[in-house]
Amino acid sequence: MGPAPLPGGKQPRTERGRRTLRKLLDAAALEFGEKGFHEASISAITGRAGMALGSFYTYFDSKDALFRALVSDLSTRVGLEAREALSGSHDALGAERAAFGAFFDFARSHQEIYRIIDEAEFVDPASFRQHYESAAQRIHERLQRGVASGELREDLDEASAWAIMGMNVFLGLKYAIWSGGRETADIAGVAGAILEKGIVKR
Amino acid sequence: MGPAPLPGGKQPRTERGRRTLRKLLDAAALEFGEKGFHEASISAITGRAGMALGSFYTYFDSKDALFRALVSDLSTRVGLEAREALSGSHDALGAERAAFGAFFDFARSHQEIYRIIDEAEFVDPASFRQHYESAAQRIHERLQRGVASGELREDLDEASAWAIMGMNVFLGLKYAIWSGGRETADIAGVAGAILEKGIVKR
Repeated sequence: MGPAPLPGGKQPRTERGRRTLRKLLDAAALEFGEKGFHEASISAITGRAGMALGSFYTYFDSKDALFRALVSDLSTRVGLEAREALSGSHDALGAERAAFGAFFDFARSHQEIYRIIDEAEFVDPASFRQHYESAAQRIHERLQRGVASGELREDLDEASAWAIMGMNVFLGLKYAIWSGGRETADIAGVAGAILEKGIVKR
Repeated sequence: MGPAPLPGGKQPRTERGRRTLRKLLDAAALEFGEKGFHEASISAITGRAGMALGSFYTYFDSKDALFRALVSDLSTRVGLEAREALSGSHDALGAERAAFGAFFDFARSHQEIYRIIDEAEFVDPASFRQHYESAAQRIHERLQRGVASGELREDLDEASAWAIMGMNVFLGLKYAIWSGGRETADIAGVAGAILEKGIVKR
């Protein structure tokens, strides 16, 4: 998967440039994820990416700019993972379950994503907010499609999307990051059952 | 409400001491909430609390120790707010709604709580984790009571508690912190409807 277009960044024009940028973002994810923003260094990142320190500035003006681009990249990739998972046909509940599973697997295989997004609240608050606003927007659009098809409650609104996102984020934090023992399908089933029937015994 | 017992801290023995400690924690919440951990200073905190800088060390050994105590204090107070809201009689769904309302109102009147808890992930990861583990534990215990009374689905487990907590945290972030336009009862109703009947149209 290619990197997301960089907001305010320098877009590489060649395939080789795009590959190098991808390496740089992947190296940055590991470095920021392990050390945090303040301890991370540009030289350690270019070192991890196997490139010369000077080449960094072909792509970014500063560590801040790279961090901002990385948050945007992760945010876009989470969205793309969900979209890919939704490419088959799904009913409205199945769509939520597929999107959750894609997010959960992405978090499990990119453990650094939580720390990076969470640190954005302090390093770059606008990116932090943009990440969640756009994820909620995607969920809200799915809910609206489910309402239009007659599958979902007509009173679902933006707040319902935020509720679902929160559910997904905390299930990911607990079971994809902190405790690894449960399967994706198991956790997706817990979230799916709440969306399907709530918590009340019938 | 008195402060929570301080983990590893110095417990004041007198009522006057407890009041001063309360003032210190409240001043710390404002200072850490506005400036963040790294920019916050002990002298600004004692200044806000109207006490001499030297008295600080009667209570804490360091800014780190104060921050740790503050996270524990906020965590305990969120729990106490929920418990107070639950002191009347509630059915199982009503209990979740009351607990959510108490949390939401507390967040709205203590806007700094999100930033402080979130920053704990970086300043004091053990406190961060403890905060969410104990909140999830409280929800899980409520769910177990609802299962025992025959009101809730028998398959609700720890993961269901994490899902509910995530819903509550993100609804709070969006509607108690970022956008203030909607009433507590309105947002509690959105969460409550999901728990009552899921998102499917019947």
